[in-house]
Amino acid sequence: MSQYNPSTTPRPVVAIMTDFGLGESDVGVMKAVIIGIASETQIIDITHDIPPQNVPYGAWVLSYGYRYYPKRTVFVCVVDPGVGSSRSAIAVHAGHWYFVGPDNGLFSYIYAQQTIHGAVVLSNSAFHLPQVSATFHGRDIFAPVGAHLARGVALHELGTSLDPQALQRIDVQPPERHGSRIDAHILYVDTFGNLVTSIPLSIVPDLFSSKHVQIVFLTNQVVVDRRRRFFAEGPVDNQPFIFGDSSGYVGVALQNGNAARSLGLGPGAPITFDINE
Amino acid sequence: MSQYNPSTTPRPVVAIMTDFGLGESDVGVMKAVIIGIASETQIIDITHDIPPQNVPYGAWVLSYGYRYYPKRTVFVCVVDPGVGSSRSAIAVHAGHWYFVGPDNGLFSYIYAQQTIHGAVVLSNSAFHLPQVSATFHGRDIFAPVGAHLARGVALHELGTSLDPQALQRIDVQPPERHGSRIDAHILYVDTFGNLVTSIPLSIVPDLFSSKHVQIVFLTNQVVVDRRRRFFAEGPVDNQPFIFGDSSGYVGVALQNGNAARSLGLGPGAPITFDINE
Amino acid sequence: MSQYNPSTTPRPVVAIMTDFGLGESDVGVMKAVIIGIASETQIIDITHDIPPQNVPYGAWVLSYGYRYYPKRTVFVCVVDPGVGSSRSAIAVHAGHWYFVGPDNGLFSYIYAQQTIHGAVVLSNSAFHLPQVSATFHGRDIFAPVGAHLARGVALHELGTSLDPQALQRIDVQPPERHGSRIDAHILYVDTFGNLVTSIPLSIVPDLFSSKHVQIVFLTNQVVVDRRRRFFAEGPVDNQPFIFGDSSGYVGVALQNGNAARSLGLGPGAPITFDINE
Repeated sequence: MSQYNPSTTPRPVVAIMTDFGLGESDVGVMKAVIIGIASETQIIDITHDIPPQNVPYGAWVLSYGYRYYPKRTVFVCVVDPGVGSSRSAIAVHAGHWYFVGPDNGLFSYIYAQQTIHGAVVLSNSAFHLPQVSATFHGRDIFAPVGAHLARGVALHELGTSLDPQALQRIDVQPPERHGSRIDAHILYVDTFGNLVTSIPLSIVPDLFSSKHVQIVFLTNQVVVDRRRRFFAEGPVDNQPFIFGDSSGYVGVALQNGNAARSLGLGPGAPITFDINE
Repeated sequence: MSQYNPSTTPRPVVAIMTDFGLGESDVGVMKAVIIGIASETQIIDITHDIPPQNVPYGAWVLSYGYRYYPKRTVFVCVVDPGVGSSRSAIAVHAGHWYFVGPDNGLFSYIYAQQTIHGAVVLSNSAFHLPQVSATFHGRDIFAPVGAHLARGVALHELGTSLDPQALQRIDVQPPERHGSRIDAHILYVDTFGNLVTSIPLSIVPDLFSSKHVQIVFLTNQVVVDRRRRFFAEGPVDNQPFIFGDSSGYVGVALQNGNAARSLGLGPGAPITFDINE
Repeated sequence: MSQYNPSTTPRPVVAIMTDFGLGESDVGVMKAVIIGIASETQIIDITHDIPPQNVPYGAWVLSYGYRYYPKRTVFVCVVDPGVGSSRSAIAVHAGHWYFVGPDNGLFSYIYAQQTIHGAVVLSNSAFHLPQVSATFHGRDIFAPVGAHLARGVALHELGTSLDPQALQRIDVQPPERHGSRIDAHILYVDTFGNLVTSIPLSIVPDLFSSKHVQIVFLTNQVVVDRRRRFFAEGPVDNQPFIFGDSSGYVGVALQNGNAARSLGLGPGAPITFDINE
């Protein structure tokens, strides 16, 4: 995690994350609605390839990049299996940023990491499109609300105030370190096939200074005990190694190779991490 | 279909749709040409994943989102199997928007749904790049013409006027309802595996109020007769149901599942729709 | 290759090319950093689907589009297998543009085609993020440096001057023509399955005027000796033909088909090209 202190920009910024993919017109339509309301907005795509309706994964992807966005950025996030049901639509002011989306735990890491300055249920339909469908709140509610926030509408105008304690949360607690031992799991496989674990680098400050570190993949009992500070270090020998991923978590990689494919492992696979001295 | 009345924005907007994919540099080059001509433009990607050279599919994707774009948006659309042949390059002013691309039927839904205020063949090479290739009119003709339109050049300056009746069209007629019966087909499978039919919601205003509705997939004789207003309604029971898709068409979905995979059906599959009372 | 003379735009332009894919948040974070530093920037994605760590391919994709970008565009390019090692981070002013990225040959075509006005090693950390990770220089060095260049910081302020002769290069020499014969290979397969060869159109100005041209694929001895100026020319007969690709290279395509799949060939496959009269 970075200590980066983001700037405030003269132009409004809206960042969008969805599970819509880019094969259809939905993401473009959301941007059209935003630009129609706040023409000066810089729109940034976080990603639209969150696996469909996977709220925990979306929460995690959002969590490791948002700190780099300019202050006052409005995050419009739609991973929303409950669209059309009684789940609330919300906007939250937390840390330096605003978050707009369904109240289903998608912002759980934000709540855990930032001070919540305010939260509202999006009950004021004056800031929605004139017609709200039952299936596309991204277009009809979240995009227009995000655009109005970006152009300066105050949070409290968007709807009824909500007790931050009442916001829906999913479990985002990092694993605990018990002395030299951490029970954790694979969180994610990146584009390069690197395995990213659920162990934050912040709880293993001794990752590179300690004498011995090992990860055991419980599924196949493979032990990895080599460490590298960066990918190009040392000879290419097709052995997996432990590294510090830029997401802020411990990772396992193969130099010029695909660790996930080579080890036959994916998200959820349990691991134990041991660090000595 | 929405009654949404889009705004006019102070900054020009160009929306791009192609079948180029994002794996190459072509889409970026089109944007570079546009920004070089009209630096203030907000560019919005509709999608670049239209299946290669599939004009009917491209026409349909364009049709269900364009209404949400700001007034005066210029749509630059390139699904163009006839590039380099005698097919014309055109710009059309229809409804509140401008459409630039090949004259091959890609704008057929627009012609059917909007008043055509004017159409031209892009014969004025002053608005093209200095060199026009035989294979990349997106870069050499459509992008620069779109940018010039966006910065305020009048339609008639772009080339020779064209009789709107002479514009190429593909068949975009919705299926007809004969009393309680509609013969239709699967138009599309979305990211979530939902089946979208060719039946516009506008011809079944009684979809949720009537006593009984059923869709029969003629390929496998599967009958679906349950309806849900939104995805999260009712228990998860892995049975397909009928819903109103945000594209404005009747759809069939599985809650937390992939209807297309489960039913083994895809675009083009014939259906009958029956509605009683 | 085009003689297109790009414009200079009032707003800064940054073009980004990476091998990160769009499934994660990395590309968005780079854009957030850029917008935080230079809020007015127009950001254009070249592509993020360079095959992981494939520097020669990235170099080639960059090479055939950059000329279309406005003058003073800053290209931030990250295909960087050596991140965190001793490879240098550089910025280069060449032709009308600026190029920021790792010194690993990614800009080799630019060096071969443009005058190099200056080059620096990015040693001035005042233009980096406050914390620089070992694995994500795209976010921590290249994005902020690119943004500072875009908002007008002079090249020499970014770090120590570098002799252009010392810049890392990969072999980007086009094949040589020996009379009527050229030994070459398949450079690339595009979205449509068209095979793009390593033969620049500039060394075969007689491609369409000569009496006979043939390409022999040495792998399977398939001979292609038909030529078409554009895809829609002639009847559809499922025979491959030679054409001039918009990338500036000789290509082989199937009308309404996938030449690569049909011929069973891909990048690297050797060919001989013969031209008579």
